[in-house]
Amino acid sequence: MSTRDLREQVLEANLAIARSGLAKLTWGNTSGIDRDRGLVAIKPSGVPYDELDADTIAVVDLEGTVVEGDMRPSTDTATHLELYRAFAGIGGITHTHSFHATAFAQARRELPFLGTTHADHFRGPVPVTREMRPEEIATDYELNTGRVIVERFAALDPRDMPAVLVAQHGPFAWGSDAADSVQNAVILEAVAELALHTLALAPGVPPASEDILARHYSRKHGPDAYYGNATGPRTAT
Amino acid sequence: MSTRDLREQVLEANLAIARSGLAKLTWGNTSGIDRDRGLVAIKPSGVPYDELDADTIAVVDLEGTVVEGDMRPSTDTATHLELYRAFAGIGGITHTHSFHATAFAQARRELPFLGTTHADHFRGPVPVTREMRPEEIATDYELNTGRVIVERFAALDPRDMPAVLVAQHGPFAWGSDAADSVQNAVILEAVAELALHTLALAPGVPPASEDILARHYSRKHGPDAYYGNATGPRTAT
Amino acid sequence: MSTRDLREQVLEANLAIARSGLAKLTWGNTSGIDRDRGLVAIKPSGVPYDELDADTIAVVDLEGTVVEGDMRPSTDTATHLELYRAFAGIGGITHTHSFHATAFAQARRELPFLGTTHADHFRGPVPVTREMRPEEIATDYELNTGRVIVERFAALDPRDMPAVLVAQHGPFAWGSDAADSVQNAVILEAVAELALHTLALAPGVPPASEDILARHYSRKHGPDAYYGNATGPRTAT
Amino acid sequence: MSTRDLREQVLEANLAIARSGLAKLTWGNTSGIDRDRGLVAIKPSGVPYDELDADTIAVVDLEGTVVEGDMRPSTDTATHLELYRAFAGIGGITHTHSFHATAFAQARRELPFLGTTHADHFRGPVPVTREMRPEEIATDYELNTGRVIVERFAALDPRDMPAVLVAQHGPFAWGSDAADSVQNAVILEAVAELALHTLALAPGVPPASEDILARHYSRKHGPDAYYGNATGPRTAT
Repeated sequence: MSTRDLREQVLEANLAIARSGLAKLTWGNTSGIDRDRGLVAIKPSGVPYDELDADTIAVVDLEGTVVEGDMRPSTDTATHLELYRAFAGIGGITHTHSFHATAFAQARRELPFLGTTHADHFRGPVPVTREMRPEEIATDYELNTGRVIVERFAALDPRDMPAVLVAQHGPFAWGSDAADSVQNAVILEAVAELALHTLALAPGVPPASEDILARHYSRKHGPDAYYGNATGPRTAT
Repeated sequence: MSTRDLREQVLEANLAIARSGLAKLTWGNTSGIDRDRGLVAIKPSGVPYDELDADTIAVVDLEGTVVEGDMRPSTDTATHLELYRAFAGIGGITHTHSFHATAFAQARRELPFLGTTHADHFRGPVPVTREMRPEEIATDYELNTGRVIVERFAALDPRDMPAVLVAQHGPFAWGSDAADSVQNAVILEAVAELALHTLALAPGVPPASEDILARHYSRKHGPDAYYGNATGPRTAT
Repeated sequence: MSTRDLREQVLEANLAIARSGLAKLTWGNTSGIDRDRGLVAIKPSGVPYDELDADTIAVVDLEGTVVEGDMRPSTDTATHLELYRAFAGIGGITHTHSFHATAFAQARRELPFLGTTHADHFRGPVPVTREMRPEEIATDYELNTGRVIVERFAALDPRDMPAVLVAQHGPFAWGSDAADSVQNAVILEAVAELALHTLALAPGVPPASEDILARHYSRKHGPDAYYGNATGPRTAT
Repeated sequence: MSTRDLREQVLEANLAIARSGLAKLTWGNTSGIDRDRGLVAIKPSGVPYDELDADTIAVVDLEGTVVEGDMRPSTDTATHLELYRAFAGIGGITHTHSFHATAFAQARRELPFLGTTHADHFRGPVPVTREMRPEEIATDYELNTGRVIVERFAALDPRDMPAVLVAQHGPFAWGSDAADSVQNAVILEAVAELALHTLALAPGVPPASEDILARHYSRKHGPDAYYGNATGPRTAT
């Protein structure tokens, strides 16, 4: 893939954040990676979405050195890079401060698994990171943000759980490419809104069953998936 | 009715779901039935609303065999078919994950009858199904989803109660045809939002009276209905 | 005023309900009165807002006899007429099921006076009616709805308190004409949303002070009003 | 700066309030100051946003005497002027009744510091004023509103904390000019909405750490700021 194509994809994904209503002002960024070349394209820091074009998208290597573009990359770039280094299977990352997912992050509560909307997309509760220590905040803060996410995923597969809540901060979501990561961020926000309303109605509601989780997740993911039209028509039952 | 006309009606109803804001991404589907021919038209699985046209709408018989269309029908087709088989009086079904109705379904609470907006459309609290058993989830899951709905309606008339909340999942609504089922899904979501706000203000509020329920429901339904302009003008009082 | 002009005003006010987002489907209606002629124009029953034009607006006398128009007037007409008969100072009435005001009505709680937004428009808490008795519901229900409102206003001046919450039902608002009643319905809904959020943060918050109430209400109403530009410029302080 | 330019800036900022959804009807106003000339431009009282143009914007001196314009300035003008006199570093002020910030003001609760979205913009909890005394309400009410804000800032720097919640009333925000004050009002409302959802999920959640506050605030403000593209590109880490 040319860096031009990568930047165009990342531009489109950043514009999709704005269209989806996930981000106010400049509060969100999306990146995408070209694994073959080890290059990451990412939103420039502090630039309003309506001033973005492909030339404003920054391109950095996996150590964060700018290799293309005239603008400073997002301040969150070191977080993105840490995730790309640790999670080999992901191709795009989206960070937002979307209202309901961020509320769970600020409340330092994981997003509980309460129904099939959740199970269709996340294989279990969406985890929340531990609070960061003063020394992690004082030095290399953004890199350390990535590290606490990776630490939280020690026993989780990022392909089954394409999002995390950073405590006192907000959500990061990822996917096969930049566009897919935005979609997962949209889904995360919707599931968080559902959960917030559900907990208002039933504060102590237990999670839905493992059976529901396994059935719904496998309807959409893996070898037995039967949702969608990728493999052509067949009898509905 | 030609299958072409049925597919057009079902196309329009699916587009109405998207316009009404009830469904994010591809999370909702509407079907309609031609009772004379025993044919059901339904949204294809996983196709975004803006890519739908009449040719993408699948047509199946009441056993789920695809009889027209090149696309795989919704994964929820078996649920729809069970409802059409059990509820002879209905002509269309809409399933969504609309936020407030789904919150009640996830909270496993029926939607209580709290006022006249509710009484105008639903003759009593909107029921929630029991949780499904592991073996019902493991095999024929979508068919069994229909069966637990039908089980819940053993003592209810689906014409007086055109919606249900499937526990840990979300709402199904039905009506005289596909368009009417979408309207009932819109009303269900509005009534659920009203109830959620009401319960926040008065967690233990008792239901409204049977007198209100009977009066308002009969204003709009049945032989003594006097709402609307179907029968021409008359003195308001 | 010609009945044509009255119908045009009432048409515009009904369209304003729809534009303001206060009413879903056909759940709201506005009327206006020509006091000199004793004629009331009101939305026809059950007609979607986008199918309204001046010819669809019904005109009735104060006893509810249709004197102009081919369509059946709103089922709520008898409520409007009772208010026009009892409250000599009002020229328009709007009824909606707007979400936050209706939540208070369903919760059977008055809308408490919590701040200056409220005080600018309502001179004290917005009252809620008592529940209606079975016999009031069984016979002349809509007329009796008007009567319980009037009963609740025995010690209130409808010019200082241009709205009421009908228990288990929803809000009615009024004003100098149809357009003014819609504006009061919009304000009522906004104040109700503010109150709902406030009560979530501080369930036992006491009302704001009588001093604030008197100051803010008199800034906008009565002989000492100094808000707006009706009387021309003067020094701000 | 000519008064024409100042009025144009203030016009644009008032239109930005309306576009941002912060104000219903006429419930919000923005002003800007020309410090060299001691002149303040401000929205006229009670004029709908869609009827504003530069000629309707009032210009007053710091004592509130109208020096340009035919319309009466906002009733809140005396509050704005008190803030300009007390806070030498500010160039614009915005007052709204935005729903979530006003809920905190009505609840008489400060807006707690719960996460990085807050820390990026406000150096600590957003303060709430004390309740005003009867004599402060009875005489020079709007001036006294300014005075209780200034009193609350005795130990706060208005440049680090560009907003306040006036108890039982609503928010005031300020900034380097009129447009910047609107942006801070938008941010305040977003942070208030996040906090309201967070407190619903975790009523007793403690504030985020001082380390997070210092790090995030200094990312965007002061000599060590590294957010944005004002100083050109550099390596992201």
